[in-house]
Amino acid sequence: MAMAFDLSLYLVTDPRLTAARGLEATVAAAVKGGVTLVQLRDPQAHGRALVEQARALKTLLAPLGIPLVINDRVDVAVAADADGVHLGQDDMTPADARALLGPGRILGLSVGNPAEHAASDLCGVDYLGVGPVKATGTKVDAGAAIGPSGVAAVRALTRLPLVGIGGIDAAMAPEVIRAGANGIAVVSAICGADDPEAAAKTLRAAVSAAR
Amino acid sequence: MAMAFDLSLYLVTDPRLTAARGLEATVAAAVKGGVTLVQLRDPQAHGRALVEQARALKTLLAPLGIPLVINDRVDVAVAADADGVHLGQDDMTPADARALLGPGRILGLSVGNPAEHAASDLCGVDYLGVGPVKATGTKVDAGAAIGPSGVAAVRALTRLPLVGIGGIDAAMAPEVIRAGANGIAVVSAICGADDPEAAAKTLRAAVSAAR
Repeated sequence: MAMAFDLSLYLVTDPRLTAARGLEATVAAAVKGGVTLVQLRDPQAHGRALVEQARALKTLLAPLGIPLVINDRVDVAVAADADGVHLGQDDMTPADARALLGPGRILGLSVGNPAEHAASDLCGVDYLGVGPVKATGTKVDAGAAIGPSGVAAVRALTRLPLVGIGGIDAAMAPEVIRAGANGIAVVSAICGADDPEAAAKTLRAAVSAAR
Repeated sequence: MAMAFDLSLYLVTDPRLTAARGLEATVAAAVKGGVTLVQLRDPQAHGRALVEQARALKTLLAPLGIPLVINDRVDVAVAADADGVHLGQDDMTPADARALLGPGRILGLSVGNPAEHAASDLCGVDYLGVGPVKATGTKVDAGAAIGPSGVAAVRALTRLPLVGIGGIDAAMAPEVIRAGANGIAVVSAICGADDPEAAAKTLRAAVSAAR
């Protein structure tokens, strides 16, 4: 069984948006503001740089008890002793990833809509990322926006914990939670904020208020 | 200790060059012609496709006793039960990869020149890929061509087995072997040939004759 984790406010990093402030400084501020889980995502980075980034974030997050998951690369997650992996539909299957990760690490899977949920082998998956809820510029290969109603449709199909993802801001967060999401995942709303700590605080409060 | 392997004629696959004939058909023909080791390389492919390709090649190669190594992705190699991994200088460090691979799999490292050799931690590395010997169109981020004399310069620095790589054809193969390489690695000379089996036969004969 995977370690306990809290999906309330799930941060996905973006190398372009964190470039000015720096990855670690952005994540540190975000966590101070209430982020409960961090995903390192940098699809263009080479393995060596990713391992270095993952180790730096792990050093930052472990003492705070905030889990770190790595997008796509199971090898990087294990090398950096991260807490888990988040997979897209084009990545290694969850079953293959679970065999490499062992039972103790967190495994997440992106699901675009109810049909994709139905077609996914969820064996070994601990949580789902559902979306894009709204169209977004940070993930160009994402599917069509499904709205909070799409989140509710996936919610009805599974008992797994799930986060809504894609274009969610503080104004939209309550709808996503009321659609049955256990939390919200954000990229731009924190990485692109002038004050990531304040942005995280506002988002976390919006999630709490909607429950 | 890694399994025994023969570097005499080392095939690196290229998705563009094998597209028309198909990856498996190209590799099958190349092995029939005398290829002794195969590296699956497709930097743009997603994890799921890579695992599927690796499993298909493993099914083809294992009964023939030809090792299969995977470029860059340690997780894909382990998931597909491939025989090893080949790393570039930007990939995970050899020490990190070896920790994930265990002692039984083959680990290769690309080294561009004597200075890069000197700067590399070779702990856990089983063989080196040295080059580009000649400028080539199949790897756009490769460094400057070092020629057979560059191979000889790296040869003088290490006891590890090594292959020359980069733009090597049958005419150049003897020079590379005489420079101290244990074999030659090729992409275009086989994947881009009209008859990959015949091309492999000619290359293998050139390597043997030069010894």
